[in-house]
Amino acid sequence: MTHTLIQFDFPYSGPWGDEMAEAMVGLAQDIAGEDGLVWKVWTENRDEGRAGGVYVFTSRSAAEAYRDKHTERLAAFGITGINALMFDVNEALSKTTRAPL
Amino acid sequence: MTHTLIQFDFPYSGPWGDEMAEAMVGLAQDIAGEDGLVWKVWTENRDEGRAGGVYVFTSRSAAEAYRDKHTERLAAFGITGINALMFDVNEALSKTTRAPL
Repeated sequence: MTHTLIQFDFPYSGPWGDEMAEAMVGLAQDIAGEDGLVWKVWTENRDEGRAGGVYVFTSRSAAEAYRDKHTERLAAFGITGINALMFDVNEALSKTTRAPL
Repeated sequence: MTHTLIQFDFPYSGPWGDEMAEAMVGLAQDIAGEDGLVWKVWTENRDEGRAGGVYVFTSRSAAEAYRDKHTERLAAFGITGINALMFDVNEALSKTTRAPL
Protein backbone atom coordinates (compact mmCIF):
# COMPACT_ATOMS: atom_id res chain seq x y z
CA MET A 1 0.00 0.00 0.00
CA THR A 2 1.14 3.52 -0.78
CA HIS A 3 0.10 6.09 1.78
CA THR A 4 -0.76 9.66 0.85
CA LEU A 5 0.45 12.60 2.94
CA ILE A 6 -1.06 16.09 3.04
CA GLN A 7 0.63 19.20 4.40
CA PHE A 8 -1.90 21.86 5.38
CA ASP A 9 -0.81 25.29 6.57
CA PHE A 10 -2.48 28.68 6.65
CA PRO A 11 -2.46 32.06 8.43
CA TYR A 12 -3.75 31.69 12.00
CA SER A 13 -3.94 34.16 14.89
CA GLY A 14 -4.54 31.83 17.86
CA PRO A 15 -5.46 30.59 20.40
CA TRP A 16 -2.21 28.64 20.84
CA GLY A 17 -0.96 25.66 22.79
CA ASP A 18 -3.21 24.45 25.60
CA GLU A 19 -5.90 27.01 24.74
CA MET A 20 -5.86 25.86 21.12
CA ALA A 21 -6.21 22.27 22.30
CA GLU A 22 -9.22 23.18 24.45
CA ALA A 23 -10.86 25.12 21.63
CA MET A 24 -10.38 22.38 19.03
CA VAL A 25 -10.79 19.12 20.95
CA GLY A 26 -14.18 18.53 19.35
CA LEU A 27 -12.80 19.11 15.87
CA ALA A 28 -9.91 16.77 16.64
CA GLN A 29 -12.29 14.02 17.76
CA ASP A 30 -14.25 14.50 14.54
CA ILE A 31 -11.10 14.37 12.40
CA ALA A 32 -9.96 11.21 14.21
CA GLY A 33 -12.99 9.48 12.69
CA GLU A 34 -12.29 10.48 9.09
CA ASP A 35 -12.33 7.64 6.55
CA GLY A 36 -8.84 6.47 5.72
CA LEU A 37 -7.00 8.69 8.22
CA VAL A 38 -3.96 7.00 9.74
CA TRP A 39 -2.87 9.99 11.81
CA LYS A 40 -2.64 13.79 11.95
CA VAL A 41 0.05 15.91 13.60
CA TRP A 42 -1.31 19.34 14.60
CA THR A 43 1.11 22.19 13.95
CA GLU A 44 1.39 25.79 15.14
CA ASN A 45 3.89 28.62 14.77
CA ARG A 46 3.16 31.64 16.94
CA ASP A 47 6.08 33.71 15.67
CA GLU A 48 4.95 33.42 12.06
CA GLY A 49 1.20 33.37 12.77
CA ARG A 50 0.62 30.08 10.99
CA ALA A 51 -0.92 26.73 11.86
CA GLY A 52 -1.97 23.57 10.10
CA GLY A 53 -1.36 19.86 10.14
CA VAL A 54 0.33 16.91 8.51
CA TYR A 55 -1.96 13.99 7.65
CA VAL A 56 -1.33 10.45 6.46
CA PHE A 57 -4.14 8.62 4.68
CA THR A 58 -4.42 5.03 3.47
CA SER A 59 -5.29 6.09 -0.09
CA ARG A 60 -5.11 9.04 -2.46
CA SER A 61 -8.89 9.08 -2.85
CA ALA A 62 -9.41 9.39 0.92
CA ALA A 63 -6.79 12.14 1.07
CA GLU A 64 -8.39 14.08 -1.79
CA ALA A 65 -11.83 13.85 -0.21
CA TYR A 66 -10.47 15.14 3.09
CA ARG A 67 -8.44 17.92 1.44
CA ASP A 68 -11.57 19.24 -0.27
CA LYS A 69 -13.70 18.97 2.89
CA HIS A 70 -11.12 20.61 5.16
CA THR A 71 -10.38 23.41 2.67
CA GLU A 72 -14.09 24.25 2.60
CA ARG A 73 -14.26 24.15 6.41
CA LEU A 74 -11.27 26.47 6.79
CA ALA A 75 -12.75 28.86 4.23
CA ALA A 76 -15.99 28.86 6.23
CA PHE A 77 -13.90 29.96 9.25
CA GLY A 78 -12.77 32.93 7.11
CA ILE A 79 -9.29 31.51 6.54
CA THR A 80 -7.60 32.36 3.25
CA GLY A 81 -4.13 31.67 1.86
CA ILE A 82 -4.42 27.95 2.50
CA ASN A 83 -1.57 25.67 1.35
CA ALA A 84 -2.59 22.03 0.88
CA LEU A 85 0.21 19.98 -0.68
CA MET A 86 -0.33 16.28 -1.42
CA PHE A 87 2.40 13.66 -1.80
CA ASP A 88 2.83 9.93 -2.16
CA VAL A 89 4.86 8.42 0.67
CA ASN A 90 8.08 6.60 -0.28
CA GLU A 91 7.53 3.63 1.99
CA ALA A 92 11.00 2.06 1.87
CA LEU A 93 12.89 5.26 2.66
CA SER A 94 10.35 6.22 5.33
CA LYS A 95 10.80 2.83 6.99
CA THR A 96 14.55 3.45 7.16
CA THR A 97 13.93 6.72 9.01
CA ARG A 98 11.45 5.12 11.46
CA ALA A 99 8.28 6.77 10.07
CA PRO A 100 5.19 5.23 11.70
CA LEU A 101 2.76 4.34 8.90
CA MET B 1 8.21 17.91 25.77
CA THR B 2 7.16 19.89 22.71
CA HIS B 3 8.22 18.31 19.45
CA THR B 4 9.20 20.37 16.41
CA LEU B 5 8.02 19.45 12.92
CA ILE B 6 9.64 20.49 9.64
CA GLN B 7 8.00 20.34 6.21
CA PHE B 8 10.60 20.23 3.42
CA ASP B 9 9.57 20.31 -0.22
CA PHE B 10 11.35 21.33 -3.42
CA PRO B 11 11.37 20.79 -7.19
CA TYR B 12 12.58 17.29 -8.05
CA SER B 13 12.78 15.39 -11.35
CA GLY B 14 13.28 11.82 -10.16
CA PRO B 15 14.11 8.98 -9.82
CA TRP B 16 10.79 7.97 -8.20
CA GLY B 17 9.43 5.17 -6.09
CA ASP B 18 11.58 2.06 -5.87
CA GLU B 19 14.37 3.68 -7.92
CA MET B 20 14.35 6.68 -5.60
CA ALA B 21 14.60 4.34 -2.63
CA GLU B 22 17.59 2.54 -4.16
CA ALA B 23 19.33 5.82 -5.00
CA MET B 24 18.82 7.33 -1.54
CA VAL B 25 19.09 4.42 0.87
CA GLY B 26 22.50 5.62 2.04
CA LEU B 27 21.21 9.12 2.66
CA ALA B 28 18.23 7.69 4.54
CA GLN B 29 20.52 5.64 6.78
CA ASP B 30 22.55 8.77 7.47
CA ILE B 31 19.44 10.83 8.26
CA ALA B 32 18.17 8.08 10.59
CA GLY B 33 21.17 8.85 12.80
CA GLU B 34 20.57 12.60 13.08
CA ASP B 35 20.60 14.01 16.61
CA GLY B 36 17.09 14.45 17.93
CA LEU B 37 15.26 12.95 14.95
CA VAL B 38 12.15 11.02 15.96
CA TRP B 39 11.09 10.11 12.41
CA LYS B 40 10.99 11.29 8.80
CA VAL B 41 8.32 10.53 6.19
CA TRP B 42 9.76 10.73 2.65
CA THR B 43 7.41 12.37 0.15
CA GLU B 44 7.23 12.46 -3.65
CA ASN B 45 4.79 13.86 -6.23
CA ARG B 46 5.58 12.81 -9.80
CA ASP B 47 2.75 14.78 -11.39
CA GLU B 48 3.93 18.05 -9.87
CA GLY B 49 7.66 17.27 -9.96
CA ARG B 50 8.19 17.81 -6.26
CA ALA B 51 9.63 15.80 -3.38
CA GLY B 52 10.62 16.36 0.22
CA GLY B 53 9.90 15.09 3.67
CA VAL B 54 8.16 15.68 6.96
CA TYR B 55 10.37 15.43 10.06
CA VAL B 56 9.68 15.36 13.77
CA PHE B 57 12.48 16.34 16.17
CA THR B 58 12.67 16.24 19.94
CA SER B 59 13.63 19.93 20.18
CA ARG B 60 13.60 23.15 18.22
CA SER B 61 17.38 23.44 18.38
CA ALA B 62 17.83 19.98 16.81
CA ALA B 63 15.30 20.85 14.12
CA GLU B 64 17.00 24.15 13.31
CA ALA B 65 20.40 22.48 13.06
CA TYR B 66 19.02 19.85 10.70
CA ARG B 67 17.10 22.41 8.60
CA ASP B 68 20.30 24.37 7.99
CA LYS B 69 22.36 21.25 7.22
CA HIS B 70 19.78 19.75 4.85
CA THR B 71 19.17 23.06 3.06
CA GLU B 72 22.90 23.31 2.36
CA ARG B 73 22.99 19.69 1.17
CA LEU B 74 20.06 20.20 -1.20
CA ALA B 75 21.65 23.38 -2.55
CA ALA B 76 24.85 21.41 -3.17
CA PHE B 77 22.73 19.01 -5.28
CA GLY B 78 21.73 22.04 -7.37
CA ILE B 79 18.23 22.20 -5.90
CA THR B 80 16.62 25.64 -5.63
CA GLY B 81 13.16 26.81 -4.58
CA ILE B 82 13.34 24.94 -1.27
CA ASN B 83 10.46 25.33 1.20
CA ALA B 84 11.38 24.51 4.80
CA LEU B 85 8.55 25.37 7.22
CA MET B 86 9.00 24.79 10.95
CA PHE B 87 6.20 24.33 13.49
CA ASP B 88 5.67 23.40 17.11
CA VAL B 89 3.55 20.28 17.54
CA ASN B 90 0.31 20.65 19.50
CA GLU B 91 0.73 17.48 21.54
CA ALA B 92 -2.79 17.16 22.98
CA LEU B 93 -4.59 17.57 19.67
CA SER B 94 -2.09 15.30 17.91
CA LYS B 95 -2.67 12.60 20.50
CA THR B 96 -6.41 12.76 19.81
CA THR B 97 -5.72 12.12 16.12
CA ARG B 98 -3.34 9.20 16.81
CA ALA B 99 -0.11 10.96 15.81
CA PRO B 100 2.91 8.84 16.75
CA LEU B 101 5.35 11.07 18.62
